[in-house]
Amino acid sequence: MTDADQRTIDVETAVREADARIGPYVLTTPVVESVALTAKLGSPVALKCENLQHTGSFKARGALSKTLALTPDERERGIVTASTGNHGAAVAHAACIVGTPALVFVPEAANPSKIATIERLGAQIRVHGADPVDSEAAARRWSEEHGLTYISPYNDIKVIGGQGTLGLELLEQVERLAAVYVAVGGGGLASGVAGVIKALSPSTRVIGCSPSASAVMYHSLQAGQILDLPSEPTMSDGTAGGVEAGSITLGLLQQHLDDFVLVSEADIRAAFLDLIEIEHMLAEGSAAMAYAACRQHASQIDGATVVILCGGNVGVDRLRTILD
Amino acid sequence: MTDADQRTIDVETAVREADARIGPYVLTTPVVESVALTAKLGSPVALKCENLQHTGSFKARGALSKTLALTPDERERGIVTASTGNHGAAVAHAACIVGTPALVFVPEAANPSKIATIERLGAQIRVHGADPVDSEAAARRWSEEHGLTYISPYNDIKVIGGQGTLGLELLEQVERLAAVYVAVGGGGLASGVAGVIKALSPSTRVIGCSPSASAVMYHSLQAGQILDLPSEPTMSDGTAGGVEAGSITLGLLQQHLDDFVLVSEADIRAAFLDLIEIEHMLAEGSAAMAYAACRQHASQIDGATVVILCGGNVGVDRLRTILD
Repeated sequence: MTDADQRTIDVETAVREADARIGPYVLTTPVVESVALTAKLGSPVALKCENLQHTGSFKARGALSKTLALTPDERERGIVTASTGNHGAAVAHAACIVGTPALVFVPEAANPSKIATIERLGAQIRVHGADPVDSEAAARRWSEEHGLTYISPYNDIKVIGGQGTLGLELLEQVERLAAVYVAVGGGGLASGVAGVIKALSPSTRVIGCSPSASAVMYHSLQAGQILDLPSEPTMSDGTAGGVEAGSITLGLLQQHLDDFVLVSEADIRAAFLDLIEIEHMLAEGSAAMAYAACRQHASQIDGATVVILCGGNVGVDRLRTILD
Repeated sequence: MTDADQRTIDVETAVREADARIGPYVLTTPVVESVALTAKLGSPVALKCENLQHTGSFKARGALSKTLALTPDERERGIVTASTGNHGAAVAHAACIVGTPALVFVPEAANPSKIATIERLGAQIRVHGADPVDSEAAARRWSEEHGLTYISPYNDIKVIGGQGTLGLELLEQVERLAAVYVAVGGGGLASGVAGVIKALSPSTRVIGCSPSASAVMYHSLQAGQILDLPSEPTMSDGTAGGVEAGSITLGLLQQHLDDFVLVSEADIRAAFLDLIEIEHMLAEGSAAMAYAACRQHASQIDGATVVILCGGNVGVDRLRTILD
């Protein structure tokens, strides 16, 4: 993709079109005060509870945006995707709603609780590859060989537009929004949210965050190109792994993100425990990671701040492991 | 209290007056679909997420209702209460808002995470008695000896009116509400919710629920008078313990509850785990208890059903113990 193509991507329009498609199928998730962050930072911090979205994460927005836009012929043939879990569940859920068969490629290390959710929603599972980016490549090949529509977790403007509806919603829910902390994996959520917020409220700062242990997009932004880097294990499994070569999210994040914070595993775990102990909120690692990023960075922000709790899919086994 | 007095208690008016007082200070908590209960029962079941209320439980409503109605003189002198935790936190929170000193009596077995929350909110703590009803008696005596206003957790029409605002809110959020499952301890929440719902939507069934291990109000309703009974330990600590002699909640529940379900500790634990694993919701034992009651009883209901998740205050230590 050339720079000229990049400039033609209008996130705001994609978000508004997605919003019209998915409106009846998604929840307006609540924004609740963060007791601990507000007390610590001295300015109002709120949590956008997207962990309460259908399928337990924001991924429902992007998957529905793409799937509801399929032609009758595409719908007939079916859809295929790759996911560490939440996007897979969201695609399975969207497939149920539009009545199309779904196949989900998952990496070998995918969270069993998340896989169980995908199967409960009626999609087929295929395990392939160690890194999520390998599962994505396999799913894309499969889609080409079998004539199915590939639903990228992030490298698709309709998916990005869907995720961006969360940003549109936030602007309606919070007055004079000063800053938003958003988790970055492949960058679909951050591209959509930052794209629409910067279009409608340019003074709002959008801060991306990733675990230090797996920060491929962060290093790619530094390098100006998508890098093929290994990842260490991280509690923020929802953002972990590589990024597809040529992903449109790189250019969108270059354009729209104001800042980027990396978070250690110790800080993610501490945030996860505080979310339970003080906020009484069950959020997954990637959401705890954004919470931790806000805590370490937000002294630089003055005014109403929001941390996106992007998902809440933590199984009992995983929870037990984290608490021990 | 005589039968004639009992009949003069107008819950609907108390709820509407409370609603006017507390409106600016409480959240309209979300109602989200219960994935597991809807699938199992074949009719739509939703969760009223009062675990997301300020202070992590519905108790904020009743405490604010009472505290915002204090005279300037009463406000000056201060307030005292007794609580296993959530009501204490709510009274401390309300005291901060109106600017009055608060003292909270807690029973010896009170959850340490809940006590820490009360202290964080600036109230003083006094540990007294094995059963919550003993702490209540001590707090009432203290209030008389020291000229402070006693804020009963349930035996006060202003507190009941505040809790009942949750029922008013539910009627606005859910069309054609067929049934509501509500946890019963002293009966403040159930009296308020059932009272206002029966006044405005008489065909909606309101079902009380308690743990079998501590069901003093259930046995009192059976006997037609408040009984002094011992309690076994229960995961539903928010509803545990005795009921104050002469409590107005007995008559209100006799009048307004349609049914009553008792729940075993095994079923409460299973519900707690399903809330995490499938609903991805962190709720405390009393909320899991209502969820379990709905699961075992709701095959008798046809139509839109709501389980009140009355609180979410589960500390990390408690969570670890439950998961192990």
